[in-house]
Amino acid sequence: MFSPLIEDLIRALRCLPGVGPKSAQRMAMYLLEKDRDAAGTLARTLEQAVEKVGRCSQCRTLTEQDVCALCNNSRRERQSMCVVETPADVLAIEQAGNYHGRYFVLHGHLSPIDGVGPDSLGIDLLEQHLAGGELRELIIATNPTVEGEATAQFIAERAAERGVAVSRIAHGVPIGGELEYIDGGTLAHAFNSRTAFSTGT
Amino acid sequence: MFSPLIEDLIRALRCLPGVGPKSAQRMAMYLLEKDRDAAGTLARTLEQAVEKVGRCSQCRTLTEQDVCALCNNSRRERQSMCVVETPADVLAIEQAGNYHGRYFVLHGHLSPIDGVGPDSLGIDLLEQHLAGGELRELIIATNPTVEGEATAQFIAERAAERGVAVSRIAHGVPIGGELEYIDGGTLAHAFNSRTAFSTGT
Repeated sequence: MFSPLIEDLIRALRCLPGVGPKSAQRMAMYLLEKDRDAAGTLARTLEQAVEKVGRCSQCRTLTEQDVCALCNNSRRERQSMCVVETPADVLAIEQAGNYHGRYFVLHGHLSPIDGVGPDSLGIDLLEQHLAGGELRELIIATNPTVEGEATAQFIAERAAERGVAVSRIAHGVPIGGELEYIDGGTLAHAFNSRTAFSTGT
Repeated sequence: MFSPLIEDLIRALRCLPGVGPKSAQRMAMYLLEKDRDAAGTLARTLEQAVEKVGRCSQCRTLTEQDVCALCNNSRRERQSMCVVETPADVLAIEQAGNYHGRYFVLHGHLSPIDGVGPDSLGIDLLEQHLAGGELRELIIATNPTVEGEATAQFIAERAAERGVAVSRIAHGVPIGGELEYIDGGTLAHAFNSRTAFSTGT
Protein backbone atom coordinates (compact mmCIF):
# COMPACT_ATOMS: atom_id res chain seq x y z
CA MET A 1 0.00 0.00 0.00
CA PHE A 2 2.87 2.37 0.76
CA SER A 3 5.55 3.02 -1.84
CA PRO A 4 8.32 0.37 -2.12
CA LEU A 5 10.92 2.39 -0.22
CA ILE A 6 8.54 3.05 2.68
CA GLU A 7 7.59 -0.65 2.75
CA ASP A 8 11.32 -1.47 2.88
CA LEU A 9 11.75 0.92 5.79
CA ILE A 10 8.82 -0.61 7.69
CA ARG A 11 10.29 -4.08 7.11
CA ALA A 12 13.75 -2.93 8.21
CA LEU A 13 12.37 -1.36 11.41
CA ARG A 14 10.86 -4.71 12.35
CA CYS A 15 14.36 -6.02 13.07
CA LEU A 16 14.22 -4.00 16.32
CA PRO A 17 13.29 -6.09 19.36
CA GLY A 18 9.68 -5.63 20.48
CA VAL A 19 8.64 -3.89 17.25
CA GLY A 20 5.78 -5.52 15.31
CA PRO A 21 4.19 -4.47 12.02
CA LYS A 22 1.98 -1.76 13.53
CA SER A 23 4.75 -0.15 15.58
CA ALA A 24 7.14 -0.31 12.62
CA GLN A 25 4.57 1.48 10.46
CA ARG A 26 4.04 4.10 13.15
CA MET A 27 7.80 4.59 13.49
CA ALA A 28 8.31 4.92 9.72
CA MET A 29 5.50 7.47 9.43
CA TYR A 30 6.80 9.41 12.42
CA LEU A 31 10.36 9.54 11.12
CA LEU A 32 9.37 10.56 7.60
CA GLU A 33 6.64 13.00 8.58
CA LYS A 34 7.81 14.60 11.79
CA ASP A 35 11.50 14.14 12.35
CA ARG A 36 13.71 13.63 9.31
CA ASP A 37 16.71 15.18 11.05
CA ALA A 38 16.54 12.62 13.84
CA ALA A 39 16.00 9.87 11.26
CA GLY A 40 19.13 10.98 9.38
CA THR A 41 21.13 11.07 12.61
CA LEU A 42 19.87 7.61 13.53
CA ALA A 43 20.83 6.23 10.10
CA ARG A 44 24.35 7.66 10.29
CA THR A 45 24.95 6.69 13.93
CA LEU A 46 23.70 3.17 13.31
CA GLU A 47 25.93 2.78 10.26
CA GLN A 48 28.97 4.01 12.18
CA ALA A 49 28.20 1.81 15.18
CA VAL A 50 27.79 -1.29 13.00
CA GLU A 51 31.08 -0.49 11.29
CA LYS A 52 33.20 0.54 14.26
CA VAL A 53 31.93 -1.08 17.44
CA GLY A 54 33.91 -4.20 18.27
CA ARG A 55 34.97 -5.89 21.47
CA CYS A 56 37.36 -4.71 24.14
CA SER A 57 40.58 -6.73 23.81
CA GLN A 58 40.67 -7.26 27.57
CA CYS A 59 37.10 -7.78 28.76
CA ARG A 60 35.22 -8.36 25.46
CA THR A 61 32.54 -5.76 26.19
CA LEU A 62 31.22 -3.78 23.22
CA THR A 63 33.33 -0.71 22.45
CA GLU A 64 34.77 1.13 19.47
CA GLN A 65 38.11 1.44 21.27
CA ASP A 66 40.71 -1.29 21.52
CA VAL A 67 40.49 -1.29 25.32
CA CYS A 68 37.26 -0.06 26.93
CA ALA A 69 37.03 2.81 29.42
CA LEU A 70 36.48 0.45 32.35
CA CYS A 71 39.57 -1.68 31.57
CA ASN A 72 41.56 1.52 31.02
CA ASN A 73 40.48 2.97 34.35
CA SER A 74 43.49 2.70 36.65
CA ARG A 75 41.30 3.16 39.73
CA ARG A 76 39.48 -0.14 39.21
CA GLU A 77 40.71 -2.97 41.45
CA ARG A 78 42.74 -5.32 39.31
CA GLN A 79 42.56 -8.30 41.65
CA SER A 80 38.86 -9.07 41.12
CA MET A 81 37.03 -9.85 37.91
CA CYS A 82 33.29 -10.29 37.45
CA VAL A 83 32.10 -12.62 34.69
CA VAL A 84 28.79 -11.61 33.07
CA GLU A 85 26.81 -12.75 30.05
CA THR A 86 26.17 -9.41 28.31
CA PRO A 87 27.40 -5.79 28.20
CA ALA A 88 24.00 -4.75 29.60
CA ASP A 89 24.84 -6.80 32.73
CA VAL A 90 27.98 -4.67 33.15
CA LEU A 91 25.79 -1.57 33.08
CA ALA A 92 23.37 -3.03 35.64
CA ILE A 93 26.20 -3.86 38.05
CA GLU A 94 27.87 -0.47 37.51
CA GLN A 95 24.58 1.26 38.26
CA ALA A 96 24.35 -0.67 41.55
CA GLY A 97 27.69 1.01 42.24
CA ASN A 98 29.35 -1.20 44.86
CA TYR A 99 31.63 -3.31 42.69
CA HIS A 100 34.95 -1.72 41.74
CA GLY A 101 36.82 -4.50 39.99
CA ARG A 102 37.09 -5.51 36.34
CA TYR A 103 34.62 -7.38 34.15
CA PHE A 104 34.67 -10.17 31.64
CA VAL A 105 31.82 -10.38 29.13
CA LEU A 106 31.02 -13.83 27.73
CA HIS A 107 28.45 -12.63 25.16
CA GLY A 108 26.17 -15.56 25.93
CA HIS A 109 26.33 -18.81 27.84
CA LEU A 110 27.38 -22.38 27.06
CA SER A 111 24.70 -23.94 24.91
CA PRO A 112 25.89 -26.97 22.93
CA ILE A 113 22.47 -27.25 21.22
CA ASP A 114 22.99 -23.81 19.62
CA GLY A 115 26.65 -24.53 18.90
CA VAL A 116 27.89 -22.17 21.61
CA GLY A 117 31.01 -23.66 23.17
CA PRO A 118 33.90 -22.26 25.24
CA ASP A 119 35.49 -20.78 22.09
CA SER A 120 32.65 -18.38 21.35
CA LEU A 121 32.59 -17.24 24.98
CA GLY A 122 36.24 -16.20 24.94
CA ILE A 123 37.23 -18.71 27.60
CA ASP A 124 40.81 -18.75 26.24
CA LEU A 125 41.10 -15.01 26.95
CA LEU A 126 39.61 -15.56 30.40
CA GLU A 127 42.19 -18.29 31.02
CA GLN A 128 44.93 -15.79 30.13
CA HIS A 129 43.56 -13.45 32.81
CA LEU A 130 43.43 -16.37 35.28
CA ALA A 131 47.02 -17.29 34.44
CA GLY A 132 48.21 -13.67 34.63
CA GLY A 133 48.80 -13.85 38.37
CA GLU A 134 47.04 -10.54 39.09
CA LEU A 135 43.59 -11.99 39.85
CA ARG A 136 42.66 -12.93 43.42
CA GLU A 137 38.95 -13.52 42.97
CA LEU A 138 36.68 -14.39 40.07
CA ILE A 139 33.04 -13.44 40.75
CA ILE A 140 30.63 -15.29 38.49
CA ALA A 141 27.46 -13.34 37.71
CA THR A 142 25.97 -15.36 34.85
CA ASN A 143 22.19 -15.57 34.89
CA PRO A 144 20.58 -18.11 37.25
CA THR A 145 19.25 -20.20 34.35
CA VAL A 146 20.17 -23.79 33.51
CA GLU A 147 22.69 -22.60 30.89
CA GLY A 148 23.97 -19.80 33.10
CA GLU A 149 24.59 -22.25 35.95
CA ALA A 150 26.35 -24.71 33.64
CA THR A 151 28.54 -21.88 32.36
CA ALA A 152 29.28 -20.79 35.93
CA GLN A 153 30.27 -24.35 36.83
CA PHE A 154 32.52 -24.64 33.79
CA ILE A 155 34.30 -21.35 34.51
CA ALA A 156 34.60 -22.13 38.22
CA GLU A 157 36.49 -25.32 37.33
CA ARG A 158 38.87 -23.41 35.04
CA ALA A 159 39.55 -20.88 37.81
CA ALA A 160 40.06 -23.59 40.42
CA GLU A 161 42.66 -25.25 38.17
CA ARG A 162 44.57 -21.97 38.12
CA GLY A 163 44.25 -21.53 41.89
CA VAL A 164 42.09 -18.40 41.69
CA ALA A 165 39.28 -18.07 44.27
CA VAL A 166 35.82 -18.22 42.69
CA SER A 167 32.51 -16.94 44.00
CA ARG A 168 28.98 -16.81 42.68
CA ILE A 169 26.70 -13.82 43.34
CA ALA A 170 23.86 -14.65 45.75
CA HIS A 171 20.43 -15.62 44.43
CA GLY A 172 17.29 -15.38 46.52
CA VAL A 173 14.39 -13.09 47.37
CA PRO A 174 15.04 -9.61 45.82
CA ILE A 175 15.39 -6.73 48.30
CA GLY A 176 11.97 -5.04 48.55
CA GLY A 177 10.31 -8.13 47.07
CA GLU A 178 7.33 -9.74 48.77
CA LEU A 179 7.48 -13.48 49.51
CA GLU A 180 3.89 -13.85 48.31
CA TYR A 181 4.90 -12.99 44.76
CA ILE A 182 8.20 -14.87 44.55
CA ASP A 183 8.28 -18.07 42.49
CA GLY A 184 8.86 -21.42 44.14
CA GLY A 185 12.27 -22.02 42.55
CA THR A 186 13.64 -18.77 43.93
CA LEU A 187 12.14 -19.46 47.37
CA ALA A 188 13.59 -22.97 47.45
CA HIS A 189 16.99 -21.54 46.51
CA ALA A 190 16.64 -18.84 49.18
CA PHE A 191 16.00 -21.53 51.83
CA ASN A 192 18.90 -23.71 50.70
CA SER A 193 21.28 -20.74 50.66
CA ARG A 194 20.16 -19.28 53.99
CA THR A 195 22.85 -17.56 56.05
CA ALA A 196 23.20 -17.84 59.84
CA PHE A 197 21.83 -15.01 61.99
CA SER A 198 23.25 -16.38 65.23
CA THR A 199 24.52 -19.80 66.21
CA GLY A 200 21.99 -20.17 69.05
CA THR A 201 24.62 -21.01 71.65
CA MET B 1 28.90 3.80 30.98
CA PHE B 2 28.94 2.45 27.42
CA SER B 3 31.49 3.74 24.92
CA PRO B 4 30.71 7.13 23.27
CA LEU B 5 29.51 5.62 19.97
CA ILE B 6 27.14 3.21 21.73
CA GLU B 7 25.82 6.05 23.89
CA ASP B 8 25.23 8.04 20.67
CA LEU B 9 23.34 5.10 19.20
CA ILE B 10 21.15 4.74 22.31
CA ARG B 11 20.40 8.47 22.20
CA ALA B 12 19.61 8.32 18.46
CA LEU B 13 17.24 5.36 18.94
CA ARG B 14 15.25 7.41 21.44
CA CYS B 15 13.94 9.53 18.56
CA LEU B 16 11.64 6.61 17.71
CA PRO B 17 8.11 7.04 19.05
CA GLY B 18 7.39 4.98 22.16
CA VAL B 19 11.07 4.22 22.80
CA GLY B 20 12.43 5.30 26.20
CA PRO B 21 15.96 4.97 27.59
CA LYS B 22 15.60 1.30 28.59
CA SER B 23 14.12 0.17 25.26
CA ALA B 24 16.72 2.19 23.35
CA GLN B 25 19.49 0.48 25.30
CA ARG B 26 17.93 -2.92 24.67
CA MET B 27 17.62 -2.15 20.96
CA ALA B 28 21.23 -0.94 20.69
CA MET B 29 22.52 -4.07 22.47
CA TYR B 30 20.35 -6.32 20.33
CA LEU B 31 21.46 -4.71 17.06
CA LEU B 32 25.16 -4.74 17.94
CA GLU B 33 25.23 -8.17 19.55
CA LYS B 34 22.76 -10.26 17.64
CA ASP B 35 21.89 -8.75 14.29
CA ARG B 36 24.46 -6.47 12.68
CA ASP B 37 23.25 -7.35 9.19
CA ALA B 38 19.75 -6.14 9.99
CA ALA B 39 21.20 -3.05 11.66
CA GLY B 40 23.20 -2.26 8.52
CA THR B 41 20.11 -2.76 6.35
CA LEU B 42 18.10 -0.51 8.64
CA ALA B 43 20.76 2.21 8.51
CA ARG B 44 20.94 2.14 4.71
CA THR B 45 17.16 1.94 4.17
CA LEU B 46 16.56 4.77 6.61
CA GLU B 47 19.17 6.94 4.93
CA GLN B 48 17.67 6.30 1.50
CA ALA B 49 14.13 6.91 2.72
CA VAL B 50 15.09 10.21 4.36
CA GLU B 51 16.82 11.27 1.17
CA LYS B 52 14.31 10.10 -1.42
CA VAL B 53 10.81 9.96 0.04
CA GLY B 54 8.86 13.09 -0.79
CA ARG B 55 5.21 13.82 -1.46
CA CYS B 56 3.02 12.73 -4.34
CA SER B 57 2.49 15.74 -6.60
CA GLN B 58 -1.23 14.94 -6.82
CA CYS B 59 -2.35 13.71 -3.40
CA ARG B 60 0.62 14.68 -1.17
CA THR B 61 0.97 11.21 0.36
CA LEU B 62 4.51 10.05 1.15
CA THR B 63 6.21 8.39 -1.81
CA GLU B 64 9.59 8.33 -3.54
CA GLN B 65 7.87 8.62 -6.93
CA ASP B 66 6.55 11.84 -8.43
CA VAL B 67 3.02 10.46 -8.55
CA CYS B 68 2.07 7.70 -6.10
CA ALA B 69 0.77 4.26 -7.09
CA LEU B 70 -2.79 5.11 -6.02
CA CYS B 71 -2.95 8.31 -8.09
CA ASN B 72 -1.41 6.45 -11.02
CA ASN B 73 -3.97 3.65 -10.81
CA SER B 74 -6.36 4.17 -13.72
CA ARG B 75 -8.98 1.94 -12.12
CA ARG B 76 -9.57 4.34 -9.21
CA GLU B 77 -12.69 6.47 -9.58
CA ARG B 78 -11.61 9.98 -10.47
CA GLN B 79 -14.84 11.70 -9.44
CA SER B 80 -14.44 11.23 -5.69
CA MET B 81 -11.65 12.36 -3.43
CA CYS B 82 -11.20 11.56 0.26
CA VAL B 83 -9.37 14.10 2.43
CA VAL B 84 -7.36 12.61 5.30
CA GLU B 85 -4.84 13.93 7.80
CA THR B 86 -2.01 11.41 7.38
CA PRO B 87 -0.68 8.73 4.98
CA ALA B 88 -1.49 6.14 7.67
CA ASP B 89 -5.16 7.13 7.33
CA VAL B 90 -4.97 6.27 3.61
CA LEU B 91 -3.73 2.82 4.59
CA ALA B 92 -6.52 2.35 7.13
CA ILE B 93 -9.20 3.24 4.57
CA GLU B 94 -7.59 1.07 1.89
CA GLN B 95 -7.55 -1.85 4.29
CA ALA B 96 -11.29 -1.41 4.87
CA GLY B 97 -11.50 -1.89 1.11
CA ASN B 98 -14.80 -0.29 0.12
CA TYR B 99 -13.59 3.10 -1.10
CA HIS B 100 -12.29 3.23 -4.67
CA GLY B 101 -11.70 6.92 -5.29
CA ARG B 102 -8.67 9.14 -4.86
CA TYR B 103 -7.14 10.63 -1.71
CA PHE B 104 -5.77 13.93 -0.57
CA VAL B 105 -3.37 13.97 2.38
CA LEU B 106 -3.24 17.16 4.46
CA HIS B 107 -0.29 16.10 6.66
CA GLY B 108 -1.95 17.57 9.73
CA HIS B 109 -4.87 19.79 10.58
CA LEU B 110 -5.45 23.53 10.92
CA SER B 111 -3.86 24.65 14.16
CA PRO B 112 -3.14 28.40 14.29
CA ILE B 113 -1.50 27.99 17.72
CA ASP B 114 1.20 25.75 16.16
CA GLY B 115 1.44 27.95 13.08
CA VAL B 116 -0.31 25.41 10.84
CA GLY B 117 -2.43 27.31 8.30
CA PRO B 118 -4.00 26.39 4.95
CA ASP B 119 -0.62 26.76 3.21
CA SER B 120 1.05 23.92 5.10
CA LEU B 121 -1.94 21.65 4.42
CA GLY B 122 -1.68 22.05 0.65
CA ILE B 123 -5.11 23.68 0.38
CA ASP B 124 -4.01 25.46 -2.83
CA LEU B 125 -3.36 22.07 -4.47
CA LEU B 126 -6.73 20.83 -3.19
CA GLU B 127 -8.39 23.92 -4.70
CA GLN B 128 -6.80 23.00 -8.06
CA HIS B 129 -8.41 19.56 -7.82
CA LEU B 130 -11.75 21.20 -6.90
CA ALA B 131 -11.47 23.59 -9.87
CA GLY B 132 -10.42 20.78 -12.24
CA GLY B 133 -14.01 19.88 -13.08
CA GLU B 134 -13.45 16.14 -12.64
CA LEU B 135 -14.50 15.89 -8.99
CA ARG B 136 -18.13 15.17 -8.07
CA GLU B 137 -17.74 14.49 -4.36
CA LEU B 138 -15.24 15.43 -1.71
CA ILE B 139 -15.37 13.07 1.30
CA ILE B 140 -13.81 14.59 4.39
CA ALA B 141 -12.25 12.04 6.74
CA THR B 142 -10.23 14.25 9.08
CA ASN B 143 -10.14 13.07 12.68
CA PRO B 144 -13.18 13.88 14.87
CA THR B 145 -11.14 16.21 17.11
CA VAL B 146 -11.66 19.94 17.56
CA GLU B 147 -8.91 20.72 15.03
CA GLY B 148 -10.05 17.99 12.65
CA GLU B 149 -13.61 19.36 12.70
CA ALA B 150 -12.39 22.93 12.11
CA THR B 151 -10.30 21.69 9.19
CA ALA B 152 -13.28 19.77 7.79
CA GLN B 153 -15.42 22.91 8.05
CA PHE B 154 -12.78 25.03 6.30
CA ILE B 155 -12.38 22.54 3.43
CA ALA B 156 -16.15 22.07 3.10
CA GLU B 157 -16.51 25.81 2.53
CA ARG B 158 -13.80 25.79 -0.17
CA ALA B 159 -15.53 22.90 -1.94
CA ALA B 160 -18.97 24.52 -1.68
CA GLU B 161 -17.56 27.67 -3.34
CA ARG B 162 -16.46 25.50 -6.27
CA GLY B 163 -19.80 23.71 -6.45
CA VAL B 164 -18.41 20.29 -5.49
CA ALA B 165 -20.58 18.12 -3.21
CA VAL B 166 -18.98 17.56 0.21
CA SER B 167 -19.63 14.82 2.74
CA ARG B 168 -18.16 13.89 6.09
CA ILE B 169 -17.66 10.25 7.12
CA ALA B 170 -20.07 9.13 9.85
CA HIS B 171 -19.04 9.20 13.50
CA GLY B 172 -20.79 7.17 16.17
CA VAL B 173 -20.63 3.86 18.00
CA PRO B 174 -18.02 1.59 16.31
CA ILE B 175 -19.36 -1.63 14.76
CA GLY B 176 -18.85 -4.39 17.33
CA GLY B 177 -18.49 -1.81 20.10
CA GLU B 178 -20.51 -2.06 23.29
CA LEU B 179 -22.52 0.97 24.39
CA GLU B 180 -21.38 0.41 27.96
CA TYR B 181 -17.78 1.24 27.04
CA ILE B 182 -18.37 4.13 24.63
CA ASP B 183 -17.53 7.65 25.86
CA GLY B 184 -20.29 10.21 26.35
CA GLY B 185 -19.17 12.49 23.53
CA THR B 186 -19.39 9.69 20.98
CA LEU B 187 -22.78 8.56 22.31
CA ALA B 188 -24.16 12.12 22.18
CA HIS B 189 -22.92 12.42 18.59
CA ALA B 190 -24.46 9.04 17.73
CA PHE B 191 -27.85 10.23 19.03
CA ASN B 192 -27.68 13.56 17.19
CA SER B 193 -26.71 11.85 13.94
CA ARG B 194 -29.29 9.04 14.18
CA THR B 195 -30.74 7.82 10.87
CA ALA B 196 -34.41 6.93 10.31
CA PHE B 197 -35.38 3.22 10.40
CA SER B 198 -38.96 3.86 9.29
CA THR B 199 -41.10 6.99 9.20
CA GLY B 200 -43.80 5.49 11.48
CA THR B 201 -46.61 6.27 9.07
